[in-house]
Amino acid sequence: MASVLITGASRGLGLALTRELASRPASAVSKIFAAIRGDAPAALNELVQKSPDRVFVVKLDVTDQNSIKKAAVEVETKLGGKGLDVLINNAGVCQYAFNGVKSMDNLEESFAINVMGVHWTTREFLPLLQKGTLKKVANMSTTMGSITLARAASALPAPAYKISKAAMNALTVQYALEYEKEGFSFIALCPGWLKTDLGGGDMADLTAEEGAKASLDIIFKEGQEYNGQMPKVFVKGWEVPKEGKWNVYDGTNAPW
Amino acid sequence: MASVLITGASRGLGLALTRELASRPASAVSKIFAAIRGDAPAALNELVQKSPDRVFVVKLDVTDQNSIKKAAVEVETKLGGKGLDVLINNAGVCQYAFNGVKSMDNLEESFAINVMGVHWTTREFLPLLQKGTLKKVANMSTTMGSITLARAASALPAPAYKISKAAMNALTVQYALEYEKEGFSFIALCPGWLKTDLGGGDMADLTAEEGAKASLDIIFKEGQEYNGQMPKVFVKGWEVPKEGKWNVYDGTNAPW
Repeated sequence: MASVLITGASRGLGLALTRELASRPASAVSKIFAAIRGDAPAALNELVQKSPDRVFVVKLDVTDQNSIKKAAVEVETKLGGKGLDVLINNAGVCQYAFNGVKSMDNLEESFAINVMGVHWTTREFLPLLQKGTLKKVANMSTTMGSITLARAASALPAPAYKISKAAMNALTVQYALEYEKEGFSFIALCPGWLKTDLGGGDMADLTAEEGAKASLDIIFKEGQEYNGQMPKVFVKGWEVPKEGKWNVYDGTNAPW
Repeated sequence: MASVLITGASRGLGLALTRELASRPASAVSKIFAAIRGDAPAALNELVQKSPDRVFVVKLDVTDQNSIKKAAVEVETKLGGKGLDVLINNAGVCQYAFNGVKSMDNLEESFAINVMGVHWTTREFLPLLQKGTLKKVANMSTTMGSITLARAASALPAPAYKISKAAMNALTVQYALEYEKEGFSFIALCPGWLKTDLGGGDMADLTAEEGAKASLDIIFKEGQEYNGQMPKVFVKGWEVPKEGKWNVYDGTNAPW
């Protein structure tokens, strides 16, 4: 009977998470809050029409604290006195700098969306999460944000993405250390290289659906083993490198 | 015959670095640019008076790109066609949040000074550094910015400091990977817990002078072994924990 809020739910992984959660029985997933900045796409409206008592579209711009506050009030009302079980901070951008790191002029914007957005959303929904039973917060991360693995990631000309995700990882651990005694799990979750707009299109490894399912496996895992960690998803068949591919999805933690 | 620019040179470690460099013979350190945001303190003016042909005060606000551009033009003129050998990105803040990470309202400011300031200063001085012979860029870091060591650092209620320094470390590695083939060393250098305003006052481990000398040992070490790394300084007598202390300064690299 989990309730879940997903930011950036209009497309890509966020939409796939919403769709996957909506496909599960109400006995498993009671309420799904699809938080989006703009207008709802047709695919999301369809999910609402199919399950109007379980799927709710909520306006939320992660770069606007007032918008987050309004969304939290709306969600609290819809929960009718219950807590929120899971928050998935999925909204994010991957910004490029094609002429080297010195040409990077979008780091502030990446920080605003990928780090401040996660911080502001998390702290605003924290009281509702403290009333919830599962106490899971998944901050969608990437091995591109691993400083340790930076050399392996050097082919992707997206320094602002990498640096802002490293900062988001550090933020995740700050929350993890502070709230672990209350039973929380704050997870810097790596969903894999996905065939989405943000990800790699058809070149990428996994469909958004595969990434969403595997992410939910980690999020709904009982206990706190992933608190303050950066797990990669586990996807059957990807435990060892496939021919012509270099990523593995074996469920292990990536290094910071 | 090295030329060195230090940001945040008006006090603390920055002033100690300037003083230490000024105390060395002109055959070792030819020109020292003490970059400061505000007015020069008496201690800095004294250094200039003692060595007016070697120590220069340069106005530079790391949060203002125009100010950095003007400073770079001024330094270029003073160098008279030569390159800049060493850039020490020392300007920084340590901001606190005393009511837990959710009360953190200074992360954007910490990013502006500790990360954007380093990025903007570095890219503006890069052409001069490329003309220099040593090609060293030291970004003053801290083990507080290590995500791996975050639990050990949890007593310090300064999440914005920790998160912004983690981001600065990630930025350092982006530069390190891109410019290593040109002979550069970009170093996320941990000078130790210092008896400065930013550091721990008298509670701290090392004097600013000790931190400055030990930092320069790493910066002036020949070769590129520290490129893309986060070395702790080496201080004799601190290779193992002292009684009642928990830090060691053994010259090893800290984990990200």
